[in-house]
Amino acid sequence: MKLGTCVYQQQTYVCIAAGDTVLLPALDAAFDQPAWRDMLALIDSDIDLQAVRNTLTAAMRVPLADVTLLAPIPRPRKNVMCLGLNYLEHAQETANQIGRTGKAPQYPIVFTKCPTSVIGHEATVPFDPETCSQLDWEAELGVVLGKGGKKIARENALAHVFGYTVINDLSARDIQLNHKQYFLGKSIDGGCPMGPWIVTADEIADPQALAIACRVNGVTKQASNTRHMIVDVASIIEWLSRGMTLEAGDVIATGTPSGVGFVREPPEYLLPGDVVECEVEGVGVLRNTIVG
Amino acid sequence: MKLGTCVYQQQTYVCIAAGDTVLLPALDAAFDQPAWRDMLALIDSDIDLQAVRNTLTAAMRVPLADVTLLAPIPRPRKNVMCLGLNYLEHAQETANQIGRTGKAPQYPIVFTKCPTSVIGHEATVPFDPETCSQLDWEAELGVVLGKGGKKIARENALAHVFGYTVINDLSARDIQLNHKQYFLGKSIDGGCPMGPWIVTADEIADPQALAIACRVNGVTKQASNTRHMIVDVASIIEWLSRGMTLEAGDVIATGTPSGVGFVREPPEYLLPGDVVECEVEGVGVLRNTIVG
Repeated sequence: MKLGTCVYQQQTYVCIAAGDTVLLPALDAAFDQPAWRDMLALIDSDIDLQAVRNTLTAAMRVPLADVTLLAPIPRPRKNVMCLGLNYLEHAQETANQIGRTGKAPQYPIVFTKCPTSVIGHEATVPFDPETCSQLDWEAELGVVLGKGGKKIARENALAHVFGYTVINDLSARDIQLNHKQYFLGKSIDGGCPMGPWIVTADEIADPQALAIACRVNGVTKQASNTRHMIVDVASIIEWLSRGMTLEAGDVIATGTPSGVGFVREPPEYLLPGDVVECEVEGVGVLRNTIVG
Repeated sequence: MKLGTCVYQQQTYVCIAAGDTVLLPALDAAFDQPAWRDMLALIDSDIDLQAVRNTLTAAMRVPLADVTLLAPIPRPRKNVMCLGLNYLEHAQETANQIGRTGKAPQYPIVFTKCPTSVIGHEATVPFDPETCSQLDWEAELGVVLGKGGKKIARENALAHVFGYTVINDLSARDIQLNHKQYFLGKSIDGGCPMGPWIVTADEIADPQALAIACRVNGVTKQASNTRHMIVDVASIIEWLSRGMTLEAGDVIATGTPSGVGFVREPPEYLLPGDVVECEVEGVGVLRNTIVG
């Protein structure tokens, strides 16, 4: 099932994708409950999504064109947790660029993006040359937890996943590299496009077998597969939960493959008018335009 | 005014410190509103705190011993934003330890601590040798924003401050250094003691003229003054808000002075039974015990 968050007639709803329509359960009095108006409440609930789907009515159906999609979780309850250098070829291209030897990090590199940076599919990314002149793309598989926990073993970790989404881990390279720690360069307003949907975990047989790509103005810049992750999704959850209690609703960006802009010769950065599409097989295509 | 969050008779309240008592405005029907049960709601409100104080009644007064203080903001709405290496002598001691030349960072180093790591005054810090064997102290002045904004100029920045608190930026050095980016080592459960109070900004004439200290089992380990910050509070707010919209309720830890444990010869780390006190002049003493 593909779940989203949308605005319809000035109200925010959780919606279910259905071709060129969306289903808004809250439009039916039987489902007008907080969980169908707030994705985090839905994740926290024990609602049987299939049971709801089996009772869907025409009254809930609205043309996709009549709603505005937001990020599936418009406001995460904490910063998005992100893996750095989690594809070997990207670790190598980055190391080459900054004059080091490229190898897989011995321990996962984890940083965060601020909740205020989250935007949805088709939302515009403001370009602010005063702050950042080196805006770069990073297509990533996003993971949304449905169940928290601590010291989650790799073997059980995927049972904690509610679903998957697409994240563009937009990076202000000048800020990121000047400030050493990545947080500021990863947290500019509009810097975390997410969506369009959360695809529930039951629909993704193997999160390590998904083609992943990024296109800028239709030109493919990144093309890889999640099987090339250095630390796979289950191991990421194990690592994150070693010392920190994870929670339902947590969002994890699992790292980007090679082909980002700042390592190219000459470097390529996003500018106003550019359209960036991030795609993960079976999860979706996330499209955003940079505006000046 | 010193504001806190406490549990009294199984309910959570915002309280006002008054010697060996606290005042719980919500106990008076006239003030039983969300803002007096949730510090973030109070910060978001336009309540005139002095006007409330002027009408305080005996009915609101409870012995301090009868309440359990939580962190003043028990659950921040996003990660706590933290400055790294923001006192020159600490930048130097750290650089010496890791074999680099010690100098002030050219750009502020900013990382985050997870909201799940926040605990209050007198709460215990769980020691988990499986995860971390190098737990270190870092006394810091905490800043709580009362008003958000973007591109906040240094000159106006202090008008955005709601108040000040004390933060112990506890650091799992093994995790922090292994993983390169600081987030994981800074976000272990119990790793962000905060409190006991938020002292409203009107009571701190100059946040850059406060003695700051850390004691472990009564022995002074850090003793400095906030005037030695490399980037002062106003400039931190300016830097953070350059590309990112700040919000009311945001919490900023402004960096620690020299004297942390991992740079000592031999290195010193916290162990079960240790009592850590962080003190900022005029703001308070934050005490926590490590438990095995």
